[in-house]
Amino acid sequence: MKRDLDAIMQANHIDVLLITGPGQHNPAMFYLTGGGHLTSADVIKKRGEPAVLFHAPMERDEAAQTGLDTRNYNRYPLRHLMQEAGGDLIRALALRYTKMLAEVGVTGGRLALFGLTDLSVAFPIFSELQRLMPSLTIVGDPGGAILQAASLTKDEAEVERIRQMGRITVEVVRRTADYLTQHAVRDEILMRADDQPLTIGDVKGQINLWLAELGAENPEGTIFAIGRHGGVPHSSGNPADVLRLGSPIVFDIFPCEAGGGYFYDFTRTWCLGYAPPEVQHLYDQVRYVYEQVRAELKPGVHFREYQQRTCEMFEELGHPTVQSNPETEAGYVHSLGHGVGLRLHERPFSGAQAAEDDILQVGTVVTIEPGLYYPERGMGVRLEDTVWLRPDGKVEQLVDYPLDLVLPMKEPK
Amino acid sequence: MKRDLDAIMQANHIDVLLITGPGQHNPAMFYLTGGGHLTSADVIKKRGEPAVLFHAPMERDEAAQTGLDTRNYNRYPLRHLMQEAGGDLIRALALRYTKMLAEVGVTGGRLALFGLTDLSVAFPIFSELQRLMPSLTIVGDPGGAILQAASLTKDEAEVERIRQMGRITVEVVRRTADYLTQHAVRDEILMRADDQPLTIGDVKGQINLWLAELGAENPEGTIFAIGRHGGVPHSSGNPADVLRLGSPIVFDIFPCEAGGGYFYDFTRTWCLGYAPPEVQHLYDQVRYVYEQVRAELKPGVHFREYQQRTCEMFEELGHPTVQSNPETEAGYVHSLGHGVGLRLHERPFSGAQAAEDDILQVGTVVTIEPGLYYPERGMGVRLEDTVWLRPDGKVEQLVDYPLDLVLPMKEPK
Repeated sequence: MKRDLDAIMQANHIDVLLITGPGQHNPAMFYLTGGGHLTSADVIKKRGEPAVLFHAPMERDEAAQTGLDTRNYNRYPLRHLMQEAGGDLIRALALRYTKMLAEVGVTGGRLALFGLTDLSVAFPIFSELQRLMPSLTIVGDPGGAILQAASLTKDEAEVERIRQMGRITVEVVRRTADYLTQHAVRDEILMRADDQPLTIGDVKGQINLWLAELGAENPEGTIFAIGRHGGVPHSSGNPADVLRLGSPIVFDIFPCEAGGGYFYDFTRTWCLGYAPPEVQHLYDQVRYVYEQVRAELKPGVHFREYQQRTCEMFEELGHPTVQSNPETEAGYVHSLGHGVGLRLHERPFSGAQAAEDDILQVGTVVTIEPGLYYPERGMGVRLEDTVWLRPDGKVEQLVDYPLDLVLPMKEPK
Repeated sequence: MKRDLDAIMQANHIDVLLITGPGQHNPAMFYLTGGGHLTSADVIKKRGEPAVLFHAPMERDEAAQTGLDTRNYNRYPLRHLMQEAGGDLIRALALRYTKMLAEVGVTGGRLALFGLTDLSVAFPIFSELQRLMPSLTIVGDPGGAILQAASLTKDEAEVERIRQMGRITVEVVRRTADYLTQHAVRDEILMRADDQPLTIGDVKGQINLWLAELGAENPEGTIFAIGRHGGVPHSSGNPADVLRLGSPIVFDIFPCEAGGGYFYDFTRTWCLGYAPPEVQHLYDQVRYVYEQVRAELKPGVHFREYQQRTCEMFEELGHPTVQSNPETEAGYVHSLGHGVGLRLHERPFSGAQAAEDDILQVGTVVTIEPGLYYPERGMGVRLEDTVWLRPDGKVEQLVDYPLDLVLPMKEPK
């Protein structure tokens, strides 16, 4: 949790955090500022001291709303910096960082750099800052040992925000199921009122509308993929594809709060009308593994162990997995799950990129999402829910929704 | 235009471009790939040769859809790279770049780095790549001399995409005006059907819904600010504020294509019901300057000259400006406009950050947005349209919408 940050910085020998970029759609900045509408800002947090927000003059109201200690960039006028830098903008902006760091009492040590921002600007500036301050060592945090380590556990306010996104998610899923099953069918194809086939593009348009209506964003899109495209886990679906009875649909939806805040992550696999036996068989296997893992989940265990367990179960059922062949594109081809928070995918991880301390703990929020993929056979099946390891030791699925494969078609309206 | 890229690379002594990060909401990547649903990818373009897209195994379909020459990351298995790197992930990923660069025939020279991505990962990787390849010089492009220089002029297909976003923008603006003016009024406050005051938050909810319905996104939000908040140019508005007759509203809307493509940028200032004389006076001055600048605009002139001209006109009218006082927070406090494309704000610039060659040219798309701000007097006024300097020499406002200040209230429905 955020209150652990100073201890985590200490354990990682980090003296100061520097987070740059916009206030929204920038998880590290959101974590420290709460997600204000800042076009571009910097947060500098010296270990053991409160974070300080440096902001543009025009954004003083938004800066003040974060509740952080604030400083206006106009304390360091660009024309003075440009003079000092001999007209070199990169050096001028790097010089501004030396002054901002001095302002919070940092003249050297180890600085961990964060922020979702434009490399073509940030890389030269921070390379220049490194040259200007040889006593400062600028490091990143590729493994998420700092901010993601803090967010390995969520407080109840954070969990409630994730749960609220879950409520919106299943409301959209429910509306999608209603919408699909009320269509007329001709030659096994869903037909619109204008006698044209309903397409994946049409369905995604509806999903986007419902998400906006309910106050959510889906910056990373939505996967709504049928048949062969559902057999490629990260295919988002072909907008021109039509909806055919019996063809498995993978519907993976992962919206976040407006402004790029907390996410939810959820997947169902549906067959409209009926399920062909081979799809039903694949589904039954995924559901078995899903329920098995869900029942076994508990705090104190490395998340990777459940990935291994999942691979073992799928292999016993006769499927290739990433454990037997890391490059396989058929069978079980990804990892079991990941943390969910201000990033759609964050620590703890369960696959190859899992850190040594990616251990499930009280306060952890993760997805559980086993799947099987056979693109050559035109099918993929995945089931996914987001769960929270509660302080009372129970594993709570944050919102409920039926796991059913088959959506029976209704009488068209 | 994109076809100028090799010449621009040559002029900037750049041997290779490297663009990293997601396929969407990442302008440099979008420019070269067309905006496919890629979670994380790399484009490497050697000067004089076509761009090559390196992609994750799970995203081969999306990669293929870009039409670029593609390579799968599974050609460089992570476990081999980790062995070679002695277990250091950063070094392993930097090693992968050395191999990807070798694949396209790059072993040294000047590399320009681009991409909207997480600094905590990218900064250490590219710093390590710099150490591993001393014959390579990694530079950024903070002034936008390369990709933004190419997009200083748009081809007609790009302009049509911007114009289409403009059509969506004015449709949303029209709906917003209709919606506002149909409300009942009590004690000069707009009232909802449930007898509660209508709030800025309610209005923004509607705007988001209409944008989604029309297939647009607003990743950078919308400014809908009344009274004092409208007097601070980048205040996005206070959701709890109520709508009061006669209080000036600054409505600045800047949506983009779904997936983070082309933007449009548009502002009107409205008074509901009536305009108090001091607001009308400020508006008249902004409109005068707006129309004057619009009439004078032509290709071949540095954009900054129009900013100077705008400052002169506002100073003649008795207002402080950023020309007389760069830190002023009252009067004319920003720049006249900016380029619009895959970035909401891109070259050419007209203010302090303008480059020497930020010259209006045939093919340039820019905003014209003079404004006056007096937060202490509870008011701000801005007018903005997006224009294209056409091949025939004319300046085309991409979509039309009335400039009117006063929106007369209708009989409530």
